[in-house]
Amino acid sequence: MRAEWLEDLVAHREAALARLGELLSIPSVSTLPEHEGDMQRAAEWLSREMEASGFHPRIEKTARHPVVWGRSPHQPGRPSVLIYAHYDVQPADPLELWTSPPFSPTIRDGQLFARGVSDDKGQLVMHLAALDSFRRLRGDFPANITLVFEGEEEIGSPNLPDFIRRHREELRADAVIISDTTMQAPNHPILVTGLRGMAGFEVIVAGPQRDVHSGLFGGAIANPAQALCQMLAACHDRPGHVAIPGFYDGVEPPPAAELASWQAGAVDPDLILAATGATSLAGEEEYSLAERLWSRPTLEVNGISAGVREGQKTIIPATARAAITCRLVVGQDPERISALVEKFLAERAPAGVSVQVIRHQASPASQVPIDSKAAKLALAALADGFGHPAQTVRGGASIPIVPVFQDVLEAPVLLMGFGLETDNFHSPDEHWRLDHFDGALATMLSFWSSLAAGGLS
Amino acid sequence: MRAEWLEDLVAHREAALARLGELLSIPSVSTLPEHEGDMQRAAEWLSREMEASGFHPRIEKTARHPVVWGRSPHQPGRPSVLIYAHYDVQPADPLELWTSPPFSPTIRDGQLFARGVSDDKGQLVMHLAALDSFRRLRGDFPANITLVFEGEEEIGSPNLPDFIRRHREELRADAVIISDTTMQAPNHPILVTGLRGMAGFEVIVAGPQRDVHSGLFGGAIANPAQALCQMLAACHDRPGHVAIPGFYDGVEPPPAAELASWQAGAVDPDLILAATGATSLAGEEEYSLAERLWSRPTLEVNGISAGVREGQKTIIPATARAAITCRLVVGQDPERISALVEKFLAERAPAGVSVQVIRHQASPASQVPIDSKAAKLALAALADGFGHPAQTVRGGASIPIVPVFQDVLEAPVLLMGFGLETDNFHSPDEHWRLDHFDGALATMLSFWSSLAAGGLS
Repeated sequence: MRAEWLEDLVAHREAALARLGELLSIPSVSTLPEHEGDMQRAAEWLSREMEASGFHPRIEKTARHPVVWGRSPHQPGRPSVLIYAHYDVQPADPLELWTSPPFSPTIRDGQLFARGVSDDKGQLVMHLAALDSFRRLRGDFPANITLVFEGEEEIGSPNLPDFIRRHREELRADAVIISDTTMQAPNHPILVTGLRGMAGFEVIVAGPQRDVHSGLFGGAIANPAQALCQMLAACHDRPGHVAIPGFYDGVEPPPAAELASWQAGAVDPDLILAATGATSLAGEEEYSLAERLWSRPTLEVNGISAGVREGQKTIIPATARAAITCRLVVGQDPERISALVEKFLAERAPAGVSVQVIRHQASPASQVPIDSKAAKLALAALADGFGHPAQTVRGGASIPIVPVFQDVLEAPVLLMGFGLETDNFHSPDEHWRLDHFDGALATMLSFWSSLAAGGLS
Repeated sequence: MRAEWLEDLVAHREAALARLGELLSIPSVSTLPEHEGDMQRAAEWLSREMEASGFHPRIEKTARHPVVWGRSPHQPGRPSVLIYAHYDVQPADPLELWTSPPFSPTIRDGQLFARGVSDDKGQLVMHLAALDSFRRLRGDFPANITLVFEGEEEIGSPNLPDFIRRHREELRADAVIISDTTMQAPNHPILVTGLRGMAGFEVIVAGPQRDVHSGLFGGAIANPAQALCQMLAACHDRPGHVAIPGFYDGVEPPPAAELASWQAGAVDPDLILAATGATSLAGEEEYSLAERLWSRPTLEVNGISAGVREGQKTIIPATARAAITCRLVVGQDPERISALVEKFLAERAPAGVSVQVIRHQASPASQVPIDSKAAKLALAALADGFGHPAQTVRGGASIPIVPVFQDVLEAPVLLMGFGLETDNFHSPDEHWRLDHFDGALATMLSFWSSLAAGGLS
């Protein structure tokens, strides 16, 4: 890294972390109605900070949570880059498993702990800080920059596609940068080449009108909790393999070269065990670990609830609920999969209960070509920023908006993420390594320097 | 009913209901640790009320909740009767489904609404009121009476058997009255001749150390919620039929005469549908409804919980839990069944999760002979009190202490209950008909009169 960059980063590190701390202190949980006010507060905070960083901010209302976006002063003839990040976070429960409170950012052992620090507020604030740094050093923006900060990523980006289509001309860019993925290992950067899609569901099984006595009525009426267990158990026919007819239709295996690299051990089993604390791996044994995570679809029960919450209670519960998400791969149409899952569950409802399946978010898998000039620039910048060659791999998670950016803006998407799989995304004690914050800043300074030097032309 | 009884009952009705209201206002939930203080308050209240009714009260500590018991002044040569009731209640949740708060007793449409009013506090206070009435009318107790009020019925009476054995001599009685069962229809009294037993379990399935991201790790590690669903689904092989090997070994069919009366329609299907709000009946089709409820064992999932409680959260949950109870019938040993269930579940844990099965309450089914003098007295009193012939039928619920009273005290147990299956035992809006309160008082006055007139000799 150049000495002048390092000097600027060190001089402004405290201020950048304080700025991040402010955003992390706002519990902007998009999935829970009680945080509506926090979402609005976060949006207003972002608007102020965008302005402080030289952007013309706008808060654009949607049916649910606002998009905060802004453009730097655009100059004709300069390349244009769109930076996307999201300011909403997952719920923080179970709270009792956090070492420090989820919305009181705390530094321990060189890592910053808070809900959303890695997914995705830290990476969002990092981009503002990197551009501030570039402007301090060079007196101007490196390109025509558009920032798009979403508040609905964790609920599947229901309103962002419309936003992008509506503002297609203003959002036009030569590259879209998304920093919401992970690296392979500490300080080992990667450029992600593909992500899984998603189809989410809520299943509600209803039986008696109220919870009723399991002795007085047990044996004579159906039990919704048992019915739900049977329906969910039927979704798999062997470990990791989904039994829903048609689920795998059209699933495309990865290209031979990519597959060969995966089978050579692209995913470290010890890292998966360390990151999850699971005692052993599971899933489809006939596939490599990389395939199970990147090119094989899944159906996961995210939660289930019925009847007695604590203590003993001898009842037949009135209702049973489950939250389910499928991760989808290339070749699977989210609408088709949603219909298959819905039909499969509805058909398996035993007599005496009624079943309702509510469809939630659905988005296809995405593939990101890495032969663009922008991708080459990104790979070089990642290597420069972390002092380690950047690899190209896929990811197992979902960023629903990636294919929309590709289709509507026709721009290459750069999945330059700076988290780690061990950062506890969506889990208690979510954290982010401060050396990744530094490395990400250095990466972006390198990227913007190359870009300003004509790297896209 | 005799005019003098009616006059006394009417004159003291308000006071008796006020007394019941005091007990109902104490949230004596035995299963939840946070109600420990309420359990103690309820015990002290009972002790004071026993004393007010002429008994020598004692509060006897156990490992969990105290037994409150007392004897009337015992006179040699008089028959002895033990009255058992319980002062603990089921948890009141879900609170939002109560029309009036569960611990604020409220009268609507001739019924008293409160948690525990029917199960079993109303019946407990009724016995005090009936004995008060008898003493006012006759100047003395009708017999040597011992009251035993338990605080652990809803958790399976773990400490009462020891109490009974320890005080065997003081508790000796010619009959044991338990008023904790239901009648066949409004003002149609019954004497219960048998109850199902119970074996309870908690199952905990553990996978990753925390809830982890279902995209980053889904496909590579086991999901405890899915594992639990599979394990619970395996417990049944067709509606109402338990698939656990050996579960039905030794199950005795009811005697031919009893069975014939059941098959003639001892249980009204419309009453079951009305009481539960279920849209259809379910269970073992090859058995009559009465058999399914009274002489066939069950395995019911009382509750299940894992992962996301509300909203969406794309995780693989760290743990999944279920509460299960089996209702047992004559011929099934609770310990043996507990071991079978435990083994079955443990063996079905898929790779990548660990399973813990905690055994809770276990008690055998009970049969109560109805050829004793005491039973004949009870049948006559029930008919007298309600002006309607009393029938003899079994029940599907469990009162764990019945077989212990029979074995240790060698006394006939009279299951004289005054609730209704539509009273929402264990459910929101539990209630009790005030005309059943009156009928029960009249029944007991009739019973005590016959007894005092030498009905047991």
